[in-house]
Amino acid sequence: MLDICLLGTSGMMPLPNRWLTSMLARYNGSSLLIDCGEGTQIALKEAGFSSYPIDIMCFTHYHADHISGLPGLLLSMGNAERTRKLTMIGPKGLVRVVESLRVIAPELPFEIEYIELAGNTQEIDLNGYHITAFKVNHNVTCYGYTIDITRIGRFDAEAAKRADIPLKCWNRLQHGEAVEYEGRTFTPGMVLGPPRKGIKVTYCTDTRPTESLVKNAAGSDLLICEGMYAEPEKQQSAKEKKHMTFYEAAHVAKDAGVKELWLTHFSPSLVAPHQYMRDVEKIFKNAFLGSDGRLLTLNFPD
Amino acid sequence: MLDICLLGTSGMMPLPNRWLTSMLARYNGSSLLIDCGEGTQIALKEAGFSSYPIDIMCFTHYHADHISGLPGLLLSMGNAERTRKLTMIGPKGLVRVVESLRVIAPELPFEIEYIELAGNTQEIDLNGYHITAFKVNHNVTCYGYTIDITRIGRFDAEAAKRADIPLKCWNRLQHGEAVEYEGRTFTPGMVLGPPRKGIKVTYCTDTRPTESLVKNAAGSDLLICEGMYAEPEKQQSAKEKKHMTFYEAAHVAKDAGVKELWLTHFSPSLVAPHQYMRDVEKIFKNAFLGSDGRLLTLNFPD
Repeated sequence: MLDICLLGTSGMMPLPNRWLTSMLARYNGSSLLIDCGEGTQIALKEAGFSSYPIDIMCFTHYHADHISGLPGLLLSMGNAERTRKLTMIGPKGLVRVVESLRVIAPELPFEIEYIELAGNTQEIDLNGYHITAFKVNHNVTCYGYTIDITRIGRFDAEAAKRADIPLKCWNRLQHGEAVEYEGRTFTPGMVLGPPRKGIKVTYCTDTRPTESLVKNAAGSDLLICEGMYAEPEKQQSAKEKKHMTFYEAAHVAKDAGVKELWLTHFSPSLVAPHQYMRDVEKIFKNAFLGSDGRLLTLNFPD
Repeated sequence: MLDICLLGTSGMMPLPNRWLTSMLARYNGSSLLIDCGEGTQIALKEAGFSSYPIDIMCFTHYHADHISGLPGLLLSMGNAERTRKLTMIGPKGLVRVVESLRVIAPELPFEIEYIELAGNTQEIDLNGYHITAFKVNHNVTCYGYTIDITRIGRFDAEAAKRADIPLKCWNRLQHGEAVEYEGRTFTPGMVLGPPRKGIKVTYCTDTRPTESLVKNAAGSDLLICEGMYAEPEKQQSAKEKKHMTFYEAAHVAKDAGVKELWLTHFSPSLVAPHQYMRDVEKIFKNAFLGSDGRLLTLNFPD
């Protein structure tokens, strides 16, 4: 079971009652945060989550509204006596930016591991999350993220019996491990069916619509997507500032065949985003307005 | 008329419904901010103030809860197309800390002037504010601030007539300026009575009670003061961590003879600060609990 919480929906600056855009994923006792703007640690508390289990932080890019809350969150995690290593993932510059911000959070009781992304796509496996970072199209280097909770095939007990695999080896094989036993080697492929459908969530902010986004979001159970503007007359601004309109995001969702779309990263000038949703739904029916603290629990399909 | 707004009351970390401790002063079209933690720019908006007229920012010290909101506020001021110079005042290290935080706010359309404090006391006059920074006693170098709106003496028209000062020179003399006219020099001392009582506000967080605090706060119309702990059993923690209890702050207010005390900078563990106020009032009657957005307008006494 994967919990997804959209912690905020604002772009550019935090507003009263609108936290900056950020997403928390919680799976199997380990949490993953994407982006951490000013106030994200408060949004996290308001939504009822703890910062303690956050083992992974991903950054889309280093505009302040996506990382300005980092020093405060790190200190709060330190105050909670965290000692577990924290892994940070982000575009080139990660170490420089984070270490510079840490001028006000120099001493932490836990280690930080940095993974600086390179190239157009990079895949990382951590704590059960299969993370795919993919480059999008903004005015600085910016990545979107797909999180897959993969699921191995069904265990075939008859096949295990036929292959004369001792019962005490079954459990590890069921979890996808190879087992050596009394000189023989058993592999998961001998007893597992084809991989089953897992859970897939895609998050992106600060981009124009791109092929990479459609391709990487393909078939997602949930797409949390940049929608800075909703007013049709802002289309030109969206192009110039490398953002998306609600309608462009809806087309991405449709083209990627996702199950559900949440719009987020609203411009401070967008005070009544709900009034545009009827037109958005005409393009993609399962489109919803993101809201601070919006929560979805995703389970394996069967 | 001087408006004072306590923007937040939290110490250590921001909480849902409790912004970090920060104070805004507004006088004669120019605002002065003391401390800027994570979320201060939102607190400012919530309290109905604009960031645009902030010309002076004072920092007590560089623990994150007092400066983590700076990059976000600077960017918001830049987005509001500010071009006026901004003056920052703070302990030694100001340039290093601010420039390091500006890794995520590198380009601003206005100039920043830095004033790094040295010594135990420093006085600065800016935009009608007479600012006194005074060193307090924390585990890092930390300053309290007193803001005086001074008031020159009453204009004595009879004295001006007796001295045969032409009418067209009166206005500038009334505003405290010396005037040269047809070879003669007139000084304010010729026509102004003794300075009248102005307005005085003192702000301090993160300190033990000190003589410097009592001395500098003396006679303030308002003292906004550190009160991290209220539970009597936390007295030892207050000593060790170089903070104050409510009762210690009340004694400071009494010893300094201030008109009014607002307590602030509450520990996150202090969830019901109001329940201790009866005992605080026994020490200093005009003691009040600070609250986010608490506002006071102070006028010259007559």
